[in-house]
Amino acid sequence: MMSAQHSKVPAFDKNELIAAVVQDAANHQVLMIAWMNKEAFDLTVKTRHAHFYSRSRKKLWKKGEESGHIQEVQSIHVDCDGDAVLLKVHQKGGGACHEGYRTCFFRTTKDGAGWEIAEKRLFNPDEVYKKK
Amino acid sequence: MMSAQHSKVPAFDKNELIAAVVQDAANHQVLMIAWMNKEAFDLTVKTRHAHFYSRSRKKLWKKGEESGHIQEVQSIHVDCDGDAVLLKVHQKGGGACHEGYRTCFFRTTKDGAGWEIAEKRLFNPDEVYKKK
Repeated sequence: MMSAQHSKVPAFDKNELIAAVVQDAANHQVLMIAWMNKEAFDLTVKTRHAHFYSRSRKKLWKKGEESGHIQEVQSIHVDCDGDAVLLKVHQKGGGACHEGYRTCFFRTTKDGAGWEIAEKRLFNPDEVYKKK
Repeated sequence: MMSAQHSKVPAFDKNELIAAVVQDAANHQVLMIAWMNKEAFDLTVKTRHAHFYSRSRKKLWKKGEESGHIQEVQSIHVDCDGDAVLLKVHQKGGGACHEGYRTCFFRTTKDGAGWEIAEKRLFNPDEVYKKK
């Protein structure tokens, strides 16, 4: 195992991405996970607003650019092997999830097959996101 | 955007993996991020001990199999697009990180270039992990 202290971080993978876990700095909920390329990471550091890279849309995005639910970054952490960051943020607006929940992890399972919704929906996505 | 409630979850990617964020159920620290294939997910559900899949070693592993620092799973959550899970766990032993820290996210940055260690080392990895 290499010494993380001396490794180059962040360590972008072969797709030039790192994983980014986002945690509410106030109540400590894990809000979401997304991906960052170097541009998204650099913009997040510079602007203190969370930016990510969409693998499906193949483009940079700013969290809240459409919903207004931006994330103000309080601190940035990197993990031991350098390929994941943790952002502690102040979540503006109703929630982090585009489905209207506070967190994206609103479903839970006991048996790995059935999933229950364990959070209340806080906003109606149809009202927050413009129809395409 | 598809309705997550009706999507198949977990949604393993083209490499047959999902991301797994691990959070301390008691103090809410984000401990680590790792990867799961279906076998790791199923074993985690069944045994209530966190199991992962190592992309570098290309094998299943049980968290704590060598260190004894196992993670007892309290609850399992899945995110809106189904390709990430959140485990809330009881972390046994000194910490989650193989470098001797409580969490793998022990380094923090202000400018994105310099990284400072923001946690105390809790154990000596050389004493916990057998020399190969």
